[in-house]
Amino acid sequence: MYRLIARDGMAKSGEFVTVHGTIQTPVFMNVGTAAAIKGAVSTADLYEIGTQVQLSNTYHLHVRPGDKVIKQLGGLHSFMVWDRPILTDSGGFQVFSLAGLRKIKEEGVYFNSHIDGRKIFMGPEESIQIQSNLGSTIAMAFDECPPHPASREYMQDSVDSTTRLLVLCKKELQRLNSLEDTINKKQMLFGINQGGTYADIRIEHAKQITELELDGYALGGLAVGESHEEMYYIIEETVPYLPVDKPVYLMGVGTPANILEAVDRGVDFFDCVYPTRNGRHGHAYTNRGKMNLMNAKYELDSLPIEEGCACPACSRYSRAYIRHLLKAKEMLGMRLLVLHNLYFYNHMMEEIRLAIREGRYKQYKKQKLESLANNEE
Amino acid sequence: MYRLIARDGMAKSGEFVTVHGTIQTPVFMNVGTAAAIKGAVSTADLYEIGTQVQLSNTYHLHVRPGDKVIKQLGGLHSFMVWDRPILTDSGGFQVFSLAGLRKIKEEGVYFNSHIDGRKIFMGPEESIQIQSNLGSTIAMAFDECPPHPASREYMQDSVDSTTRLLVLCKKELQRLNSLEDTINKKQMLFGINQGGTYADIRIEHAKQITELELDGYALGGLAVGESHEEMYYIIEETVPYLPVDKPVYLMGVGTPANILEAVDRGVDFFDCVYPTRNGRHGHAYTNRGKMNLMNAKYELDSLPIEEGCACPACSRYSRAYIRHLLKAKEMLGMRLLVLHNLYFYNHMMEEIRLAIREGRYKQYKKQKLESLANNEE
Repeated sequence: MYRLIARDGMAKSGEFVTVHGTIQTPVFMNVGTAAAIKGAVSTADLYEIGTQVQLSNTYHLHVRPGDKVIKQLGGLHSFMVWDRPILTDSGGFQVFSLAGLRKIKEEGVYFNSHIDGRKIFMGPEESIQIQSNLGSTIAMAFDECPPHPASREYMQDSVDSTTRLLVLCKKELQRLNSLEDTINKKQMLFGINQGGTYADIRIEHAKQITELELDGYALGGLAVGESHEEMYYIIEETVPYLPVDKPVYLMGVGTPANILEAVDRGVDFFDCVYPTRNGRHGHAYTNRGKMNLMNAKYELDSLPIEEGCACPACSRYSRAYIRHLLKAKEMLGMRLLVLHNLYFYNHMMEEIRLAIREGRYKQYKKQKLESLANNEE
Repeated sequence: MYRLIARDGMAKSGEFVTVHGTIQTPVFMNVGTAAAIKGAVSTADLYEIGTQVQLSNTYHLHVRPGDKVIKQLGGLHSFMVWDRPILTDSGGFQVFSLAGLRKIKEEGVYFNSHIDGRKIFMGPEESIQIQSNLGSTIAMAFDECPPHPASREYMQDSVDSTTRLLVLCKKELQRLNSLEDTINKKQMLFGINQGGTYADIRIEHAKQITELELDGYALGGLAVGESHEEMYYIIEETVPYLPVDKPVYLMGVGTPANILEAVDRGVDFFDCVYPTRNGRHGHAYTNRGKMNLMNAKYELDSLPIEEGCACPACSRYSRAYIRHLLKAKEMLGMRLLVLHNLYFYNHMMEEIRLAIREGRYKQYKKQKLESLANNEE
């Protein structure tokens, strides 16, 4: 259940009540693809860096260790020892990218596991069954991921297919939630809006899926090659046609600036691998832009990555030490940067929520964007 | 200053007072070669797993980031944010193994850095200067590392050389400790007993270096290919000729069984890469022997690595989860195993100290060896 707490222009801040606790929005979900955050970060660490929601990938967990294994072990929450909300994706995106498929028949698609080549069948029912086995808080609908660019005709076809798939997903989740041995009988479902950069297709689709009265709505198929301006335009056009009393999730986005702009257009949920991936490559997010900790100028720098930052890296270790760890290929260097970057994102979301609730979001966004643009590299 | 607290047969337990706090012996030092424990373990973690002493490698820190860099940053304690004792080795062992040298001239040896090929000169003064720059609690003397096996004549020559080097090290440390800008003016020096498996050479050498009245004494050149029985015999023969009111350090040893036997022959200090290296390869130490967490039989095993263990891994995560992390090549798997293994070693040393202080060491050792032999793999 979503409770709208404050609006500031189109920006909104709410509380999303789940069986695993209440999520304050806007929120950035921390990505733990294979039931672990890359960079040796544990769920114990996630509590420390203010993570509200952990996101795991259905496809990855289906192929290893297997969703049935995880179900036998009590579900994903029990498996990775995390009692706050978990969102799982549908696996569709991986099916399309790994199997090289775009259009699928309604009943699903065969493809080979990237681990052992085993043939796997995945369709809307299978995706929901896997997510039910994982027992995540929020399941994502299995949709078609159209290419970018795509012709208008192709896009309309694909979106129609996504709508039909969504109906099947909803039905399957209702069935599974009513079964005795289902791990999370209150599993929620988010539908996914598609339509590429065709605003009218997006809007029509938004209206259709709104009628299905789902727990939340996602914008899919963005940040796939279109410009930031196109993405912001599509969000701006589409969000007004999604219910204001439900959370809106912009999938796979993005940079701090992307998030600031999307929040300003009414988005509640985000996820992105940037903070973990950049951390593992030696880059840190700060309020003065990104830093490359491998840079020679940090050799004797005894300051933390960012002064005043309360993350587990900054509250102890210096730039010089972290630089040394990266140069010496000590895993600890990556770990400290990933912890810092996730903390940075989580902390920014906290600032965002406060600014919206205090009615000063436009001003906050302007200042934050200016400071982030001061890239000191 | 070493205070003998209890003796139980030849086993002894003491307190070693240093400028960075008091070490309870017998103690296992946790190896952080390049100023970090491999496996993404931070000094913050070390406090949590009961680490008393951290050991770093002089050669590695000399070539990267450089001991002068570390000195400018306030020394190794400040660099890695660790306020308890640190022991640094002399770098001699790395010089011998990396440069392929065995015999050196008294003044030192040239060799190439394994990082950038740069020519480096290392002798007794250089080793002590580097260790002084690092500001470690305990510096190790620069010695010759004889091959195994070596002829009696070769060994006698080498040991004589080690004695002469030790005199130079002691003199250089005294000089450096009196300088104004030295980081740790109370840096201590441990001398190293050599002699391979020639008990009489060992004993004669032990007597000689005892006369130098150092802060502690190490047994070097063991666990280099001789049998465990030969090693125990040499410890047994030599330790009685080292002062009982000084700590005895058995370098680079070893398995839990090795440690139990060496403690029974009067050893106080240990260090070994086994717990970290085995952890990174998926192996866990337990009181029922070693476990290979990659084993398929743990796929659905919801127990912790070891029931009752209070380490950060066992207090939260299951064998099944750790196995999954290892299979998925998630760094977190290695990290959890390294934390468990170091905790296992540190905790065993605590049991050892208690058993000695309560006069039941023989009984404890017997039981522990029996339980460790129950290798369930």
